[in-house]
Order: sequence, then C-alpha cells, then structure tokens
Amino acid sequence: MISVISQHHTAHNPAFEFYRGEKVPCFESPQRLEFVIQALQARGHEIKIAEQQADSILTTIHSHRYLQFLASAWDQWTALAADNADKQPFPSVWPIRSLRSDIEPDNFIARLGFYSMDNGTPLAAGSWTAAKAGADAAVSAADLLSNGHSSVFCATRPPGHHAGPDFMGGYCFLNNAAIAAQSLRHQGCQRVAIIDVDYHHGNGTQTIFYDRADVLYISLHGDPVTEYPFYLGHADETGRGAGQGYNLNLPMAAGTDTVTWFAALDTACRQVLRFKPDALVISLGMDTFADDPISQFTLQSDDFYRIGKHLAALRLPTLFIMEGGYATAALGNNTVNVLEGFDNA
Amino acid sequence: MISVISQHHTAHNPAFEFYRGEKVPCFESPQRLEFVIQALQARGHEIKIAEQQADSILTTIHSHRYLQFLASAWDQWTALAADNADKQPFPSVWPIRSLRSDIEPDNFIARLGFYSMDNGTPLAAGSWTAAKAGADAAVSAADLLSNGHSSVFCATRPPGHHAGPDFMGGYCFLNNAAIAAQSLRHQGCQRVAIIDVDYHHGNGTQTIFYDRADVLYISLHGDPVTEYPFYLGHADETGRGAGQGYNLNLPMAAGTDTVTWFAALDTACRQVLRFKPDALVISLGMDTFADDPISQFTLQSDDFYRIGKHLAALRLPTLFIMEGGYATAALGNNTVNVLEGFDNA
Repeated sequence: MISVISQHHTAHNPAFEFYRGEKVPCFESPQRLEFVIQALQARGHEIKIAEQQADSILTTIHSHRYLQFLASAWDQWTALAADNADKQPFPSVWPIRSLRSDIEPDNFIARLGFYSMDNGTPLAAGSWTAAKAGADAAVSAADLLSNGHSSVFCATRPPGHHAGPDFMGGYCFLNNAAIAAQSLRHQGCQRVAIIDVDYHHGNGTQTIFYDRADVLYISLHGDPVTEYPFYLGHADETGRGAGQGYNLNLPMAAGTDTVTWFAALDTACRQVLRFKPDALVISLGMDTFADDPISQFTLQSDDFYRIGKHLAALRLPTLFIMEGGYATAALGNNTVNVLEGFDNA
Repeated sequence: MISVISQHHTAHNPAFEFYRGEKVPCFESPQRLEFVIQALQARGHEIKIAEQQADSILTTIHSHRYLQFLASAWDQWTALAADNADKQPFPSVWPIRSLRSDIEPDNFIARLGFYSMDNGTPLAAGSWTAAKAGADAAVSAADLLSNGHSSVFCATRPPGHHAGPDFMGGYCFLNNAAIAAQSLRHQGCQRVAIIDVDYHHGNGTQTIFYDRADVLYISLHGDPVTEYPFYLGHADETGRGAGQGYNLNLPMAAGTDTVTWFAALDTACRQVLRFKPDALVISLGMDTFADDPISQFTLQSDDFYRIGKHLAALRLPTLFIMEGGYATAALGNNTVNVLEGFDNA
C-alpha cells in the first residue's frame, strides 16, 4: 500500500515530559517516525509526502478556542519571559469536578491546564507546526483512499487518539484518526469504523464520536484501572444518545497474552462487519509489542503481520494511521510488518 | 479572644510544590504558623491547644473515598518503591472534561490526580496527621464558640478553603472552614455565614455549600481570570437549587486598592446582616497584604485592624480560621492585628 508521510513531524521535538509524576526525557521522539520511514524505504514501499490542507476540517473535530490556543501557545509562552524559549511550559492547575470549563483564564499556565489532561504532552516551539502537518497527512491519506487506493498508511506524529474535542493529552494535540474518519465522511462514506489497536485507550477519539452512529469506535487496550489514560476506556462505555451501541471498549489486563489479544481483535472485526462501514480507519499504535518500555502486552514482531492479515480479511478500504509505540528501534519493522501482512493477505 | 492551636501542624512540611508550572520551595510552611503563635504569645493572647476529635464530622464535608485516600496516601506511596520516602509524589494526569470521575484507578499517581486540582498541594509524610489535626482544631474552635466564647481564633495549617468535597488543591487537604461551619450547624446554629477574605477564591468552600441555604458563602478575592484558583470564583456564581442566592463572589482585579477592598467588605457585611445568621466564620487569609509574594492586593498592616473592626460591627459569634498568607515574617503581627481590631471594636 502507499504511505503518506507528514512532512514537518520533526518540528515537534521537546526534551522532557512528566511520566507518572517524574520528569523524564520524551518517549515520543522524531526518531520514532524516522525508523518507520527508513523501514518503508528499505522494504520498497511507495512513499508520498503529505500535502498542506485547509484548516476547515479541524473545526469539525476540535473546538475553535482550543485550536486558537494550540496555534498560538508557543508564541504566548515565549512572549511572557525572555528565557521561556529555553524552557517547556507544563500545566500546574486544571479544572476537574466542580471547576468551570466555560471561562478560559488569562494566565498562560492556567490556560494550558484548562486544555490539558496531563503534563505528559509537552509543548515545544514546533508543536503546532508538526501537529497541523500531521492532521494534513491524515486528510491526504483520506484523499488517497477516496481516490482509488484500497489501503493507505499515514506515517505521522505526534499521535492523536488521546486528544479530545478541546484538550491535549498523552503526547497528542490533534486527533488525526478522528480527522481522517471525518474526512472520509465528507468524501462520501456514510459509515466509517475505527479500530484502535494502540496499547492505550483512545479516549479522545471515543469522546469525539460518542454521540454519533455514523462512526463506530472500537478499542483494544490495557485496562484503564492500571493503564493510561486511567479515566476512560471501561467496558461499560457503549455510546450515548444516537451513538448508543457505536462504541466498544475491549480492555485487557496488563500482561495479557497474544492469544487473548487476537481473540479481542476478532471480536472487533466481527462488530465492524455487522456495522457495514464504507471505510475502516486503524489507529495503529505499536506499543502492544512485548519490548515496549511503557506498555504491558506481549506481542512479538511476527504477530504484527497477523494483525495486518486479520484486518485485510474485512475487505474494506483501510486507512492505517500511526499512533504510539516506544520501542523505537523496532518500531519501523514492526509497523511495516502490519502493512505487509495486510498487503499479502 | 481565645486562640486554639492545631497541635500537629508541623507534621506537614513538604520541600517542594509546583507554582505556575515551576518546581519551587513551598510557600506554605510550618514557619507561617509559628510566627502567628509567637505574635499571639508576645501580645498576651490566651492560647489553648486543640483537642483530638471524632472523625465523623469529616464525612459530612468530604467523600468517604477521598478521606480514605488521604489518610493512606503516604503509606501507599512509600510502599511502591524503596526511595519514595525521600521523594514527593505529584499528579501527572487528571480527569478533566469527558473523563470519568466515578471509577478510581489503581495506579497511585493516577489516583493522586483523580483527587487533585493542581500539583501545588504537596503531599508529605505527615500531611494527613497535620490535616486531621487542623480539622480537629476547627471543631475545637466551634466547640468553644458554642460554649460561650463570643469569638475564637483557630490557628491552623495547612489551610482548607480550596479543598473540595473530594479533591485537594491550593495547599489544602481538608476544608477547615467548612468543617467549622458544619460543626456550628450540628451544635444548634440554624444559619451560618462564611466570609472568606483570603486573596484567593475559596472554591472548595463554595462548592461544598453551593446547594444549601443554611450556609451563606461570601468571598472577596483576586479575579480568577488571572488569579488562582482560575476556574471558579466569578460573580455569576450565586448558588444552585435551594442554595440559589446563598453564594456571593466579589472578585477584584489584581492591584485593587484598599478603598475598593473595604467597600467590598462592607457589601459582604450587609449581605451577612440580611441573612441573619447565628454565627459567622471568617476564612482568614492574610495574603491581601501588599508584601505577599504570590498575591496582588495592597493592604497594609494597619488595615488588618480595620478588618477586625468592620467584622466586629456585625455583633455575631465569630470564628476566625487561618487560611493563606505567605509574607511569613509579617504574618504573625498582621493576623493578631485582625483579632485585636475585632476585640477592641
């Protein structure tokens, strides 16, 4: 299948994040995608650079004021103090229960917290450039799928599936998978299914489509009782209103074996077939790999071929979009294994 | 008036907090209360050590699971790793909009974020001991007021007014003012008024009584658009349901002068008189002082006598309870100025 590459992803290259309360070097690095691109090239895949797209699709997924904040955040931060350009801003206060989410505060750090579910989503000089280019790549991938390609891989970062309608989280700023699904809807697909195979529940994607029957969201992930994002992704979240029945969470305990994981994938696939979508989006997180440094599933490199093969059996126009995966050196080959498993099915 | 002192406040002595995104030494220190106690002694005030109280009052203000978490948090943290006793835990993820607040995660840091509105409320070895002793002091002060004292000062820390029904924030774990007001209700007061003169809006106290007509909450504070707690304390928050009309916020811009501040105090006092309470609780934050390092009002030391005098004119049984104030060396004399302004009115 053809791969479309986000052209400005390296612009997002922060030094630090907070991980479970500790300030640590970023797991989500430009090297991740460089390894993926190298593997695509080494294994002879066709690669296309994503085109710049209109901004209009973004406001169908994210709130206008969140987008305005994101686009200007770094300039606001560096305008506050001469040495801020050498520092990363992190939220230190945030609006949980009983605190208001309707009035945006003026204070920059309070505004950052207003739009953040964690301090694990570091903002740096090029974050907006990279996030916007990533969303452009998602739209470009949807265009390719609509224009006759039966499958497309979108090689992009930062990832997107934790980004909600109006907040960042889990390395994610703009929800690329949601943007891709919405693009497909605009291009004539009546129903789009999303299967999210990242180790972490895609709380942002779930929330964006929770009230809708036209986009089915299914996620296989580490149980949020012990795994990020902790506060969403339980089995009892099945959609709301018109969206009731169009959200399926398949949480699995940390340490879950490969047999159980593939049984869950088959459950997801059966549900997709019942939905009869016009297209399928795969939130392709690669952190189910046994060697992933922050995840607890046990998939081996060969298992990623099998994922591609299982998904190909659905015989749907399929858009793969990169999410997480932090065993950086193995990321390229594991990712291309999925694509080749799909191509060769 | 008699002063009642929390006997274990020094047990809460963390090294660091996060302030507007930066890790800094704690502003809220044991020295604060030591200066207050020294000033009380130097100026000849009667001092009583608070008595230990039953836990039952706490569950009328805070959720059972939040109290359980607080009481065991340090032990849970230190059980996780051998060197955790030398470190402070800070939240790095939290449940804002669309994330669930009904299922408590197992992961300790995620649980800490579940119960926190900021990372400016550092948890240390003795935090629960000090917080519980502070709540005991609030109950002891309410007992003294009910047993014939016309006014009582409760010298306690950590402060309380940012602590909500089920979360910590702004140096606060247990809401001492709310506990004092509830104790007064249990002891026969039909109506209790609270005036919160801390520089920061008492979002916890407001939330705890927001649906109730028996406790009037009035706050004079820095406008939350620019000042902590940022997400509550606006003028349009007037109560809800039975509590409609029993919450009054008087936010003032940073830099507001003393004339304007005292005009707001008089507005608060008139509202209290209309309410006809049986007792008055003053959330006595001293960070309205011009030299406070994290606040932006302009009161001078002599102005604190005037606060006492204005409040005495209400002729109500009055319980003063310590909240913030971070100009530590001046805190003792400024605080006792309020009490003597009241006593000598």
